[in-house]
Amino acid sequence: MNLDGLKYNELGLIPAIVQDTVTKEVLMMAWMNRESLKLTLETKRATYWSRSRNKLWVKGETSGHFQYVDKVLYDCDADTLLLLVKQTGAACHTGARSCFFGELPMKGDSKDEQHI
Amino acid sequence: MNLDGLKYNELGLIPAIVQDTVTKEVLMMAWMNRESLKLTLETKRATYWSRSRNKLWVKGETSGHFQYVDKVLYDCDADTLLLLVKQTGAACHTGARSCFFGELPMKGDSKDEQHI
Repeated sequence: MNLDGLKYNELGLIPAIVQDTVTKEVLMMAWMNRESLKLTLETKRATYWSRSRNKLWVKGETSGHFQYVDKVLYDCDADTLLLLVKQTGAACHTGARSCFFGELPMKGDSKDEQHI
Repeated sequence: MNLDGLKYNELGLIPAIVQDTVTKEVLMMAWMNRESLKLTLETKRATYWSRSRNKLWVKGETSGHFQYVDKVLYDCDADTLLLLVKQTGAACHTGARSCFFGELPMKGDSKDEQHI
């Protein structure tokens, strides 16, 4: 498999799930284009495509919270990536270690059930 | 947060990362629309929107490999979900436990480096 064998979406992007190598915590999801993925594989620092700023984005370039990449896996459909990283500081711009800190109520869960 | 507070894409879909509650392995990524997410929260069985078949898809409905959902988390941007599940059998249609079994070579990795 090489970079051209992956399936990018109509914008040329592929989603990248980011997991902490050590704790196995899922930290965030971001998007890559071919160039950011190539840079990630070459530099071993996670580099994404910022859809809001429309530019390459080295994670940590402003915050110092770099992600040192141990492995880049792809799935059976070759349309999603999974990065295993050593996370410096917080992955989330809010300061949380992981971006996934909100929880939706499920049926049977306390008083919040009606929010579904 | 309720289902209407989430950010769906232009097709009305939101990506859902699926992680094994016990092993913490990332098993797959799939897409949900509002209805499939509502069903997931109500039935506690992971239900997705199949983009190829253009219909609701209860994971395991043909394979028997259901995903029993323990938690549904959302990220800081409210545009990505993380499901923690108990996976029956294999998550991947290939029979692999996780869909992420391919690995891209990184700079410095053996002979595969040139594939970048």
